[in-house]
Amino acid sequence: MNAGLPRLSINQMTVRQLSLPELAEACGESGIGQVGLWRAPVQAYGVDATAKLIRATGLTVTTLCRGGFLTAIDPSERAEALADNRRAVHEAATLGTDTLVLVSGGLPPGTRDLGAARERIADALAELAPYAENHGVRLAVEPLHPMYAADRCVVSTLAQALDLAERFPAHQVGVTVDTYHIWWDDQAPAQIARAGAGGRIHSVQLADWVTPLPEGVLNGRGQIGDGAIDMREWTGYVQAAGYTGPIEVELFNEGLWARDGREVLAETAARFAEHVAPGPS
Amino acid sequence: MNAGLPRLSINQMTVRQLSLPELAEACGESGIGQVGLWRAPVQAYGVDATAKLIRATGLTVTTLCRGGFLTAIDPSERAEALADNRRAVHEAATLGTDTLVLVSGGLPPGTRDLGAARERIADALAELAPYAENHGVRLAVEPLHPMYAADRCVVSTLAQALDLAERFPAHQVGVTVDTYHIWWDDQAPAQIARAGAGGRIHSVQLADWVTPLPEGVLNGRGQIGDGAIDMREWTGYVQAAGYTGPIEVELFNEGLWARDGREVLAETAARFAEHVAPGPS
Repeated sequence: MNAGLPRLSINQMTVRQLSLPELAEACGESGIGQVGLWRAPVQAYGVDATAKLIRATGLTVTTLCRGGFLTAIDPSERAEALADNRRAVHEAATLGTDTLVLVSGGLPPGTRDLGAARERIADALAELAPYAENHGVRLAVEPLHPMYAADRCVVSTLAQALDLAERFPAHQVGVTVDTYHIWWDDQAPAQIARAGAGGRIHSVQLADWVTPLPEGVLNGRGQIGDGAIDMREWTGYVQAAGYTGPIEVELFNEGLWARDGREVLAETAARFAEHVAPGPS
Repeated sequence: MNAGLPRLSINQMTVRQLSLPELAEACGESGIGQVGLWRAPVQAYGVDATAKLIRATGLTVTTLCRGGFLTAIDPSERAEALADNRRAVHEAATLGTDTLVLVSGGLPPGTRDLGAARERIADALAELAPYAENHGVRLAVEPLHPMYAADRCVVSTLAQALDLAERFPAHQVGVTVDTYHIWWDDQAPAQIARAGAGGRIHSVQLADWVTPLPEGVLNGRGQIGDGAIDMREWTGYVQAAGYTGPIEVELFNEGLWARDGREVLAETAARFAEHVAPGPS
């Protein structure tokens, strides 16, 4: 492992052009010891095969992305979502990570009640959290930027995510702190402190904010240092909150995906070293 | 004026395909007595000519959009922005409206400090607010959705807008409450109450939230009733806060702009009647 970047974890999505064996090999070459994985490419390669590959290459899996989408009203849709999240718990356990990231889900079509949707997430967490604990997995509720409130995630602020998480023990439910989603929020630094004090920072992810946003606003997350977010400031907040764990770089970016994956990996490691606050010594 | 829609004001941008004379005529035919105007089309037609047209047709101008863009650091850029805002104050006074809407401006290129940018807005308001008062105009600081924080408006919440406004007398500086920008915010209902209690709701605007967002996220504001926002709930909040003034419908929408403007005007009036909370009796 690169002694200078012990905290860096590469989220698989950042270099999704790399297959899992390519990712593992490139991480080894770059001295990166940690990865965050996504369910779809892991399922495509095979969950057991991925776990075997990860063990063989000595990588640590920091998170599995992602469960969630728990806002359905229809009972059969809701049951299917819960079953899928139980499968995600099993996959996380098989991959050897203790953290499953949850993206809550948007408003069911035709509905307009954000508060009621958030309550359905709480109800779902009450079923999933003890189940996950029994499998050695904790849940990390991720607030997504308010521009996703309708169609992807009704949890828009760290305060809302913590309001949900704090209904459960910290070893069952915490939050994901992702700079891309919270950087605009002047309340977020205080909420990071709240999360740290409660032992609920279960995942930290970085992406930069670049404009103009692309159609659909999904795949415009900028490389660290390219955008409006002061990464040193924000990683300083999580550190001041007592967080000493891995920091994932998770970029959804068509431009980066069109490039050579190993080159993007090396660039990301260099940007991390340049822009992220020094870790605890 | 249509007795059923005394509160509706059509923002010029909603039907920007109509010239000012066409807009005035169409409003007359539809029984709409109030309009919100934009500086660029008014300047193109002529400020005095617009004022004359408005007087001749008996319309009321509810707001002029927009001043602002007050975050520059460079002294000459800052001086030019202030001068332009003084021109906007004169234009508002000439048009006979007492309300100038302000969009604050984004981060200057290469900077990352949202808090410092907000302080520069406060400094600019200290110069502009008394000047505007001397011309019978009040300023309405508009929080824009957090997706615009970097490139358009560093004021992202109603709480931030009120924190700025409350440094000045309410008859000088208030806020604009626009559903499109605040609907995701669970703190916004309390902030509307705060604004109302302080006499600082200087403008109310409606647009609905529809997805997917278009590239650049500017021109995807949905027709009332087409999206995720419960208009009855939100207009109920402003009413409960004591606001009895006009409610503008301000839609930026390529699809609406491609249609016949009079048809869009009629549709908008019908949607307003269907979805907006009943007014004070």
